[in-house]
Formats: sequence, C-alpha cells, structure tokens
Amino acid sequence: MRSLIDITDFTNEELYGLMDCALDIIANPEKYSEACKGKKLATLFFEPSTRTRLSFEAAMLELGGSVIGFSSASSSSAAKGESMADTAKVISCYADIIASRHPQDGANYVAAKNATVPVINAGDGMHCHPTQTLADLLTIYREKHTFDNLTVGLCGDLKYGRTVHSLIGALSRYKNVKLVLISPKELRIPEFVKTDIIEKFNMPYKEVFSLEEAIPELDVLYMTRIQRERFEDKDEYERLKNSYVLDVEKMKSAKSDMIVLHPLPRVNEISVKVDDDPRACYFKQCANGKYMRMALILKLLGEAKANPVKEDRTKGLEIVVNDTLCPNHRCISQSEQELEHAYKAVDRLKGLYRCLYCDSEVRL
Amino acid sequence: MRSLIDITDFTNEELYGLMDCALDIIANPEKYSEACKGKKLATLFFEPSTRTRLSFEAAMLELGGSVIGFSSASSSSAAKGESMADTAKVISCYADIIASRHPQDGANYVAAKNATVPVINAGDGMHCHPTQTLADLLTIYREKHTFDNLTVGLCGDLKYGRTVHSLIGALSRYKNVKLVLISPKELRIPEFVKTDIIEKFNMPYKEVFSLEEAIPELDVLYMTRIQRERFEDKDEYERLKNSYVLDVEKMKSAKSDMIVLHPLPRVNEISVKVDDDPRACYFKQCANGKYMRMALILKLLGEAKANPVKEDRTKGLEIVVNDTLCPNHRCISQSEQELEHAYKAVDRLKGLYRCLYCDSEVRL
Amino acid sequence: MRSLIDITDFTNEELYGLMDCALDIIANPEKYSEACKGKKLATLFFEPSTRTRLSFEAAMLELGGSVIGFSSASSSSAAKGESMADTAKVISCYADIIASRHPQDGANYVAAKNATVPVINAGDGMHCHPTQTLADLLTIYREKHTFDNLTVGLCGDLKYGRTVHSLIGALSRYKNVKLVLISPKELRIPEFVKTDIIEKFNMPYKEVFSLEEAIPELDVLYMTRIQRERFEDKDEYERLKNSYVLDVEKMKSAKSDMIVLHPLPRVNEISVKVDDDPRACYFKQCANGKYMRMALILKLLGEAKANPVKEDRTKGLEIVVNDTLCPNHRCISQSEQELEHAYKAVDRLKGLYRCLYCDSEVRL
Repeated sequence: MRSLIDITDFTNEELYGLMDCALDIIANPEKYSEACKGKKLATLFFEPSTRTRLSFEAAMLELGGSVIGFSSASSSSAAKGESMADTAKVISCYADIIASRHPQDGANYVAAKNATVPVINAGDGMHCHPTQTLADLLTIYREKHTFDNLTVGLCGDLKYGRTVHSLIGALSRYKNVKLVLISPKELRIPEFVKTDIIEKFNMPYKEVFSLEEAIPELDVLYMTRIQRERFEDKDEYERLKNSYVLDVEKMKSAKSDMIVLHPLPRVNEISVKVDDDPRACYFKQCANGKYMRMALILKLLGEAKANPVKEDRTKGLEIVVNDTLCPNHRCISQSEQELEHAYKAVDRLKGLYRCLYCDSEVRL
Repeated sequence: MRSLIDITDFTNEELYGLMDCALDIIANPEKYSEACKGKKLATLFFEPSTRTRLSFEAAMLELGGSVIGFSSASSSSAAKGESMADTAKVISCYADIIASRHPQDGANYVAAKNATVPVINAGDGMHCHPTQTLADLLTIYREKHTFDNLTVGLCGDLKYGRTVHSLIGALSRYKNVKLVLISPKELRIPEFVKTDIIEKFNMPYKEVFSLEEAIPELDVLYMTRIQRERFEDKDEYERLKNSYVLDVEKMKSAKSDMIVLHPLPRVNEISVKVDDDPRACYFKQCANGKYMRMALILKLLGEAKANPVKEDRTKGLEIVVNDTLCPNHRCISQSEQELEHAYKAVDRLKGLYRCLYCDSEVRL
Repeated sequence: MRSLIDITDFTNEELYGLMDCALDIIANPEKYSEACKGKKLATLFFEPSTRTRLSFEAAMLELGGSVIGFSSASSSSAAKGESMADTAKVISCYADIIASRHPQDGANYVAAKNATVPVINAGDGMHCHPTQTLADLLTIYREKHTFDNLTVGLCGDLKYGRTVHSLIGALSRYKNVKLVLISPKELRIPEFVKTDIIEKFNMPYKEVFSLEEAIPELDVLYMTRIQRERFEDKDEYERLKNSYVLDVEKMKSAKSDMIVLHPLPRVNEISVKVDDDPRACYFKQCANGKYMRMALILKLLGEAKANPVKEDRTKGLEIVVNDTLCPNHRCISQSEQELEHAYKAVDRLKGLYRCLYCDSEVRL
C-alpha cells in the first residue's frame, strides 16, 4: 500500500502509466463507471479549495464510488484540537482512500504515516500539490505529445508557487527541457530549486524579467498569480503588475502552437479575452486533472488491494531524531501532539539535513 | 441546451409539461429511480440555503444521480477572488448540470453564459428564484386543479419579495387571476411589477392593508415574512407586525377550501397552530418543490442531450454594450472581472433599457 | 415508527439485537451492501463533529443508501431563524431518516416530535449522545464478551461528560457491574446520576481521585478529557492535569486484558505512545460506532416500514404543561417558537418533575 505525498513518489514509468490510464478513461468512460463501486473516498479539506475538492469528488463518482468529507477546518474535529494522526486513524475506519488538503507543510505526510488506507496529498501548505502536477503533465502530453525538447516558460510568482516547483521537478526527468523563468526579482525561483533540481539535472535555463520578450520562443507558458502581499515595495508592485498579465496583445507574439497553462483560480493575470484563443488550455487542464485523479485513485486502491502492507517511506533514508525544532513555522511538527522531530540526511558530512515532514533544510 | 434563469424562460406549455412530469414522478417514483444514473449535479451555494440546496440534492438522488458542491462561499474558490465565469467553466468539467445560488443579482445569468452544461438559477440576490415558483405552481395546481379564475392574496413584504414578483409573473399567463395585494405601505408592490406585469396583462387587482379584511374572499393566500429592518419607523413596525401574522383566529374567516402557501423558512408570520389546519399547504409545497426540481433536471438534461448547442439568450433582443454602470449595486456586473456592461432595449425611442444580467431599469 | 433520542429508548434485548446485527454486518458486509438502496439519510449537524457525522455517512453509504445534509449551523436555515420543528418537517420531505446534532439540550426530541421520518439523536448539547454509547457497548462486548461482573473505571470529567452518564445508564442493566469513578473533586459525578442510576440499580461503586491507584483492578478504563475551563482554581488544574493523563507508565500496572476506551477526539489525555498497546481500543471503538449506526439505521427504517405510525413518546407519562420556564438555559424550550413548556412527573407528591425535552429537574 502506497500514498502519494510528493510527485517524486512516482517513477517516470509510473507517471506514463497514470497518463495512459487517464487517456483510456477519456476514451472509454463507461469501462470505468463501476470500477470503484462500494468504495469510499474521504475528502479532508482543512482549508477550502473548491476546484481540487470537487475534482476529486467528481473523479470518485465517475468511478462509481462515493464520497464523504468536509470542506473547511471549522466543520472538522481539528477545531477541537484533534491531531492529524488521530484524524487519519479515525477516517481510515470510514473510507477506503483519503484525499487531504491542509494548511501546514508536511501534514499529509503525517496523515499517510498514521492512516491504514492510502492518502493522497491534495496540497499541504507551501509544500507540495502533486495532483496539480499530474494535471499539468497530462495537459502537456495531450497537447504536445512529448515532454522532450520543449521550451517551458514559467511566469509570475516562482518563489512561493509550489505548483511551479513541483512541475520543474517533474520536467527534470525528461530530455532537454529548457526552462525560461519569468518573474520580478522579488519572486525569483529559490536557490534550492536551482541547486537541487535545475542544476542537478542539468536543465538548460535562463531567468528573465519580461514576459513580452520571453514569449516568442516558448512551447509551453505556465502562468501563475503575483500577489500584492509578496512585495515590500508596493510602488514596485504597481509598476510591474501589468507586465505579468497575459493579454491578447502578448499572445500575438507567441508561437501558433504554444499552449497556456494556469493552475487556477486566476484573478486577473490572464485576460478573459485570451480564453477564446485555442492556445488557452487552462480549462482543459482542469478536466485533465479530474482524469488523472481517477487514474490515481485506481492505482492506489489497486496497489492497496494487492499488498495491504504499508510502504515504509523512510526506507533507504538515514533518519535522525532529535530535539531540534524544524525552522519552518508552518511545519506540522510545530503543533502535532507528540510528533518526534525527524530529519533525513542530505549530506551527513556537511551536516545537511531536511525535515522528514516538510523538507525544509536544517543543519544538525 | 438551455438553462433556467427566470421563470419566463419557459412557455405556459412547458410549465404544464413540467407539472405533468412531476405528477408522474409522484405516482411512479420507481420509474425514475435510475433516470439520471451516472449523472452529476453540482450545487453551488455561494450563500446558505438548506431548504433549496437539500431539495435539489434529494431531487438528483431520487433520480439515481449524484451530487457534488459547496454550501457557502467561504468553502469555495470565490473566497480567493475567482470570477463567476471561471467557476462556471471549471464546474462544467465536473458536473452534468449546475444549480447555483448567489447573493448578487444576475450572477447565474453569467454562470449560464459561461458554463458548458445547463445552469439552474437557485436564487440570485433579490432578482429571481424560479424553482420556488415551480413549487408554488405545482402546489396550487395539485390543490385547486386550475389556475384560472382564482383570487390570490399575497401578504407581507411585497416590495422586496422576489418569490412574490415571480409568482405574479407566472400567474399573469392564466385566465382571470385576481390579485389581492396585502401589505403595509412601506412594503407595497413596486411600480414596475404593476406596470410591467399586472397592468400589462390586465390582471384584476387591489391593494389593501388588512389581512383580516382580505382573507374571506381568497382562494389562495401566499404569506411572506415582514422584516423589522425594512421599516424606517420602528414604532410603525411594532404597531403593524401582528396584523400580518396568520393565526387560528384569522383562519376562521377564510374559505373552507382556501390554501395557505409560504416559501419558507418562516419565522413567526404563521402561528405554529395553523400547521394542523388542512388548508396549511406550506410543507406540501416543500415536497412539491422537490418533485418539480426532479422534472426540471430531467427536462434540461434531456434537452442538452438532444441538442448540445447552447441557446443564445440574447436572440431577438436588441443589445447595447457601453460603459454605463448598472445602477443596481448588487448586480454581478459591479464586480465580475472584465464583464461588459450590456443592456437590452425595452423602449428604444424613450431610451428605456434593462440590465442584461439583473433586469434593473436604465435610461441610456 | 420510532426515533432514538436516549439510550434508554431501547430495551436490553433491543441493544443485544443491535449488537448481533452489527456483528453480522462485520462478518458479512456484502449481505448489507444494498440494504438501503434508494434510501436517503439527512445528517443535520448544527454544530461540527467530523467523527460522528462521517461515521453516519459511511454507515449509510455502506448500506447502499445516500446522504444529504449540512455540517454547521451557518450553512443551514437555522441561520435565518428557522425553528427545529420546521426544519424537521421540511427535511422529512427530502430524506427517509435523520441524524441530528444540535447544541441545545432537547433539540432532537423536538425534531423527532415533528419529523415524519425516524430521527437519531447524534448529540444534543450536554444532554444525550446515545450512538456513542452504542459504540462503547459493542466495543466492550467484542473485547470482553460479556457485561456482567466487569469492573469499569470512568476517568476524567465525570460531571459534564454526557457519554459517561449514558454509559453508566446502559451498564446499570447488567449484572454486578462495579464502577470506579476517577476524577478530581471539581468534576465528580453529579448527585442525580448517583441517585437516579447508580444507587437506584444498586451498582457497586467507589469514588477515587487517583487514576494510578485505581487502574490495577479495572477490566475496562473509559477515559475522557479534562478541560481547563472547568476549573475555578487554575493552579489546581495545573497541579492535577498530569495525573489524569494515561501514559505507558500507568498502563504497566493495569491488567493484561484491561481495555481502554475513549469517545474521541482526544487532546492529550492519552499519550500517543499508548496507541500501540493492544489494550488500546479507542480506534476499534470508532469502527464499532460505524457498525452500530448501520444496525441502528436498519432497525429504525425497518420499524418505520412495518408501522409508519409514530410512537407516542409521552405514552405512560404524566405530563404537565404550564408557564414555568425550564431552568436549563441550554434547553431548546428557551428559544423554540411556540414550544409549550412541558414536564413529566417523577414524584408528583413531592412536586418533582423533569423537563420533557432536556430532562432537567424542576419543582412544580
């Protein structure tokens, strides 16, 4: 039995397997309409997210299963101070598989560790959102038929955007994917993404400030939102914001077969008028997300049936447990009852470790 | 493919068709128990309304379909600033039909315009609530077997009560329906309802202040709530409120076959003791609402299957798009991203127009 | 047709019947997988409770039925001031059975009185929570195979803990159950539980302050949470709190076949490290709750089908209706529209009565 916490939990072959399954579901929906009959998905949304929650619910219903859950923390026992571990153990009595969204980094790692059914990370704080990446990948695959040799522009908030980091991680596995990182200097890609992924896997990349200048060479443009709150200098924000809005004018200089992606919800970073452009794929992406979630549910339930023993996520890792508090104040280890502070070695000699739950860097 | 935004979207024949379908469902529920197998209804409730939401959900489940959705805006992506148009496009990826309730007038027009599945207006601000009118009509039809020649009393808040305005609109199509409009002067029926419906269709009517005096001649009494907040003069409210409460005493002077309707929830405008009177039909009305919603879902899904092309709601209308802001501060056009301000001509020579979304009068 | 408001609504035989049904469900789940096909459960949660709500929902889904409802009062019409009676009447149009949780004592009595379908009390204020007691009983039955001759320790907040009072009531029916009541003096068992249950049914009992001293003789240990808010003297709380935490150390002095129960959610009154002890049964208890709810739904729907006439809950009681306000400020009779103040005689000569809704003592 496995869970999906981070997109890297799956091999490249497994991702292709999921995409092939999704394509088969799209081609033959009736074949899958009772695939999960009698099975229950629990959607545990400790913070609201209509899109993701309804996508999971639609996915399970289209597989013939049913759904229980909650859509905000105030409707849950977390309001009474229940730990994530206990919630996971309890919900395992009620459901066959769990999709969990939580505001704290690493919370779903703890859920997976304690649940006796598979857990899908539907977003944990600023940490991961792997099923969004599944939607991104299927959209690129359906539209471009390959990942190799693509020039992918990532635009907007590259600093805090977890979907951007996940997508880069996933793309690092393919051949010759060139990255164009488009952002204001306040929101540049973090150093650890560069060293741990982009440079480690020798991905060609460049960092630029202008969407307008970058757009002509792109095969894929991944847009994200720039939030005013991220800027210390509000004048800077006012000066910059329009240059990161994708509009009909900017689309004119793009390739005729470029595709535009966006994790949604958008606020105003893509003009509504772009929606009618056939290159706008963000609503297709949304539908693709549902199909990938269907494939994922099938995969995890199938594995759990074949082998009910839970995968040991620490296998092969060197783990250190000590009293050091994780420096990430959003980490689940800051609040979860009696959760031990555990770190996995990155470079033991240099004293480099990462938090087992939220992956934050620590020196021990 | 059509949506239901306003009760006048349907012809008289279509309304009778819906009622006949509802009566058949009541008589033969098992015939319909798998009619929507594999179909999904999305209930998008941007403001809470147990009754309406659960009525829709029960309706879809009794048709063998399933339901996804949310019950308040705080659990939705609207909290992140997503536009109604985007929500409608996204939800179309997850569901086969949408029932939407929204605090802004005209919001569900925008939803229908952008969704790729049928949209049912489950209430949009002060604007329309057509499925309540469907419940009202079936109740009158089942109890009185006709709409012609009825004397219908409408009591309480006739100024702001959208269910009252919708019902008058629906009744205007039948022969010789007499209206008795019973309200305090602060809450009298608005001029536009008089000119655009009552007088236009030559409905006999009178306006009175006393429920007690009006009740003996009525065949149907439609009660609504009077809210303290509506009164500038609070003493006036205190003086008046009891005269608009229907109690056992007032029921004594009513016809033996008069029926009492109420859109519910009531607060105290009908005494609980009236519930046991066989003329009290407001809980029957509630059940009838479910059956009409079942008939409606069947009709709209059937039409969408027969003809997936979306109906053009502006067909035959003369539309003007300009920069004039709709004067209704609750109109969706006040906040929806990049929504054009559009007006339909009522009397072009006189410069009379109505907002395309919320129907507010404008002079251009 | 019956409802379940208080655990004493069922005879001892009926409780054994429910447990036998639950055991059969556990042994042969597929036998029941379509037992409630086409039936709808409404979960009306006027206050949040993930565990109880999801347990009911899972129960109904595992019986092949479906679920509608709400998870907090803000999503319900109660926010518009609707009475419990009206809500119950309306929901009866939409569902075949209701599970209701409400912050006011006696609210679900009023629901049952007005609904035309069976109502299950899923918790009403500080009053009752009978389905928790069903879970408790099945857990003891499965683990100890009998209720007779057990020594049962109840630890923590015995004053306000409604699950404790209900369990004592249920255990009073079995032979020679010895109670060990373990609590700080601020949270001792109330006098009325002693006189009305423990002493009335001649249950051997003792009251002690120390969990550590009490634990060696117990067959069953029922833990509950001690809330800081309950203490006037906060120093006293700080001094005491750890002595009521069950940890690995205390477990060492317990019998090898003692079982630990907890109604959950726990905060920190049981150390997480105890979870791995095979004597820890609180997560089993959680699963057992689902099975008992399945058995209960089957029983009540079966009875409603066999005899749709509603049971008269006042049968055999001497009822007095007068203007005396119930002294319990959380009682539903304090706020429900036009609800008569009704009392049942306990000892008429002494003028001793109890509120019909919340069971609070009154002298009339």
